[in-house]
Amino acid sequence: MNKTTLNTLLSGIHWDDNGLIPVIAQDTKTKKVLMLAWMNKEALIKTCETKQVHYFSRSRNQLWLKGESSGHYQNLKNIYLDCDADVLLVEIEQIGGISCHTGRESCFFKRWDGEQWQVSEPVLKNPQDIYNGINSHE
Amino acid sequence: MNKTTLNTLLSGIHWDDNGLIPVIAQDTKTKKVLMLAWMNKEALIKTCETKQVHYFSRSRNQLWLKGESSGHYQNLKNIYLDCDADVLLVEIEQIGGISCHTGRESCFFKRWDGEQWQVSEPVLKNPQDIYNGINSHE
Repeated sequence: MNKTTLNTLLSGIHWDDNGLIPVIAQDTKTKKVLMLAWMNKEALIKTCETKQVHYFSRSRNQLWLKGESSGHYQNLKNIYLDCDADVLLVEIEQIGGISCHTGRESCFFKRWDGEQWQVSEPVLKNPQDIYNGINSHE
Repeated sequence: MNKTTLNTLLSGIHWDDNGLIPVIAQDTKTKKVLMLAWMNKEALIKTCETKQVHYFSRSRNQLWLKGESSGHYQNLKNIYLDCDADVLLVEIEQIGGISCHTGRESCFFKRWDGEQWQVSEPVLKNPQDIYNGINSHE
């Protein structure tokens, strides 16, 4: 990506006080909302250049190629910026059909039924089998 | 909502340092991601009790019934919490088919085409007609 394009990509974005922006990941085929994570400038640039979604892990305080330990990469199909330029939406192909470290398709698997938060999605794969002993919680 | 249910609703949630949680709004029929805003405890309780989505406006620093000035209310269909309990997803019926203060269906109307952020959604209604002179930017 040349310098002018890079400036155009980054210039309009309102980063928060930590230099981050929230990113919603949506499956491009099923339209299911899979997760929300955060990007810094480096993660956004890497994502656009490689077409593989990179986030910034706030817990590990480092760049995080989604799928690097699980194999569940996210191939970028489209990236959108919202009206206030402070939220991104990525449409992705979810490799393996699992985005959540619990082995579920989506991270949004607790549904409020009026009384309690009910688990509303099955575990598709045992996290231990996904991560082979690697610390699972990205 | 009785006290026990209220405690169950709120107790598992990880609020950020400002007492807020990001909330993704998705159209329950089209599955389109419409916007991201924030809730505090009061907004979440009001949303669950009234089935109309309330946010906390960070710019106005107050409770915000979505649609109060535009008429574009969001009727709650489902609410989900993610694996880390720090993001909410609401499935909603978007009254008027417009969630964005610019008069578009979705706030995510700028698409990166590799060169620039391109407007990718039409304005469905003139914002001046929506707000009738009321300050539009919620």
